[in-house]
Amino acid sequence: MKRTDVLVIGAGPAGLFQVFELGLQGLACTVVEALPQPGGQCAELYPDKPIYDIPAIPVISGAGLTESLLRQIEPFAPDFLFGDTLTEINRDGERLNARTAAGVEIDAGAVVICAGAGIFRPVRMKLPGIDRFEGRQLHYAVRDRSNLRDRQLVIFGGGDSALDWALALAGEARSLVLVHRSERFRAQPALVERMQQLCREGRMQCLFGKASDYRENAGRLDAVQVTLADGETRWLELDQLLVFFGMVPNPGPLTDWRLDMERNQVRVDTERFETSVPGVFAVGDINIYPGKKKLILSAFHEAALAAFAIKERLEPGKKAQLQYTTTSPQLLKRLGRKGQ
Amino acid sequence: MKRTDVLVIGAGPAGLFQVFELGLQGLACTVVEALPQPGGQCAELYPDKPIYDIPAIPVISGAGLTESLLRQIEPFAPDFLFGDTLTEINRDGERLNARTAAGVEIDAGAVVICAGAGIFRPVRMKLPGIDRFEGRQLHYAVRDRSNLRDRQLVIFGGGDSALDWALALAGEARSLVLVHRSERFRAQPALVERMQQLCREGRMQCLFGKASDYRENAGRLDAVQVTLADGETRWLELDQLLVFFGMVPNPGPLTDWRLDMERNQVRVDTERFETSVPGVFAVGDINIYPGKKKLILSAFHEAALAAFAIKERLEPGKKAQLQYTTTSPQLLKRLGRKGQ
Repeated sequence: MKRTDVLVIGAGPAGLFQVFELGLQGLACTVVEALPQPGGQCAELYPDKPIYDIPAIPVISGAGLTESLLRQIEPFAPDFLFGDTLTEINRDGERLNARTAAGVEIDAGAVVICAGAGIFRPVRMKLPGIDRFEGRQLHYAVRDRSNLRDRQLVIFGGGDSALDWALALAGEARSLVLVHRSERFRAQPALVERMQQLCREGRMQCLFGKASDYRENAGRLDAVQVTLADGETRWLELDQLLVFFGMVPNPGPLTDWRLDMERNQVRVDTERFETSVPGVFAVGDINIYPGKKKLILSAFHEAALAAFAIKERLEPGKKAQLQYTTTSPQLLKRLGRKGQ
Repeated sequence: MKRTDVLVIGAGPAGLFQVFELGLQGLACTVVEALPQPGGQCAELYPDKPIYDIPAIPVISGAGLTESLLRQIEPFAPDFLFGDTLTEINRDGERLNARTAAGVEIDAGAVVICAGAGIFRPVRMKLPGIDRFEGRQLHYAVRDRSNLRDRQLVIFGGGDSALDWALALAGEARSLVLVHRSERFRAQPALVERMQQLCREGRMQCLFGKASDYRENAGRLDAVQVTLADGETRWLELDQLLVFFGMVPNPGPLTDWRLDMERNQVRVDTERFETSVPGVFAVGDINIYPGKKKLILSAFHEAALAAFAIKERLEPGKKAQLQYTTTSPQLLKRLGRKGQ
């Protein structure tokens, strides 16, 4: 049984910076991350893509951001459990007891969910038996982009993810067809316009219809059938099939808890970033509050305020005072830096 | 008459990043800054001091932070008015008209106050005629630290600023006496403890009393008299006198507007960061809301959300959509970067 101050779920930018802010408060963390490495979506989906809106960093890649955050939290040496997920969380008085899939038991004073979209699972394509191609030719996220180069690609979906990837891959695929159920897209208008431009230039195609069948050939997914709005069907040959139908909550200990939710997000207040379950906080893309924007820089602010609230939860009656890393001897000591 | 989308007051980290977030929304800014250069408190008070809690930047100086932010906002080329202040702001329908001390007239669709503590002025020492030494031997902020090295210093005050500077200067002054009216300090306990430690080590002195007189010699401030709690008086010889009695609102167009205030801060909501006056927003150390911490990283978040609210104010009926700098062709174009 591990005993820790705070259990952080997720090691994306939000989870990593949460460790930093808790460290400044003198609190230690155990971090459980489903992926085998830190960085979350940034490192997983966009390791090489430039990000331009991290404050005071004119440009940085997803991988670079992860690396910088890891360097920043070094003084606080969190206990990372990679490739593991929570299977159970139970309340034990003021403490919370968790158990992971690998069988680790964790006793914590507070939990922070920094799971991005990670407590959700993708909505799957509903063609019987097609799931056996998942991970090989059927994908709900892009893990390895090099596998898609010079291939025949079919992408399903009409949201930002589908459009993002259609635009990103149109230049490098052998062929690319985007299929969406109607002419109304959920994606940002600017993405839709650019997609239509690419269609006019003959660099990709766009069809409106639904997947109705698929064809297998020598153990490989060979083509998918689309039924168009007028009932006509069309076979699309493919090497790789990408599906972006959005996310739904994944049954698990967090959804068991019946946190107060709004669409796919966990509701929090803007003072403490605490959920409807006391002692359970949520930071980053997973939370929602009036005005919420899914920006990394907002996760940083949320993590800082949650850390103050957690400090006061763990040391009741003591006000967590604002100190500055430039001047506070206590913070400099925690950071392993000499005072003046 | 300058016509601009948004008038930003203050060019500290909050004001600079506000320009960036407004730029991403396609909005242009005029920035009025009382100091002759950008950077605000960071550049003015702590240019060389390391800051450790800017997310994803393990360590940076105040000057370095300013420089990075200036590089980040380059694509948006704001119109800076340095060394100038607002003397008047008037409402003109949905627009706001401002006039500066230098006589510039500005017509803007919204105003963001990013003035740090800048719409406040320091509480001055109340000894008749002592103000004639201000800027030479009497200081309410440290502008040039090299002037204080190897000098006899007297510091008045009992808050964080007074203690911060006493601790920072004790090692390099010839002598240092801190004077506070009582044994109860407003400063953080850790700073007070460290100050007491330095007193025990003979590296500085601390007295409890009030300034009651001063002495001039050949046009120079020579000594200050302190009346202690028991009525006894003592003369303290000095080269430089530093006074940190806190801040009060500075009469001016912003205080004339009777913004809803709480202590020395402007009240805002946490969705739009708008003040009680529609179209006037406040971001950074100057604002207050439940949970507010005066952290630079919070100013960044506030600036982003205020930018969305301002976009919707200036283009009513159109929802300002969240886009990502990694993928949005529109944002990449605004940033002067090529799309994919």
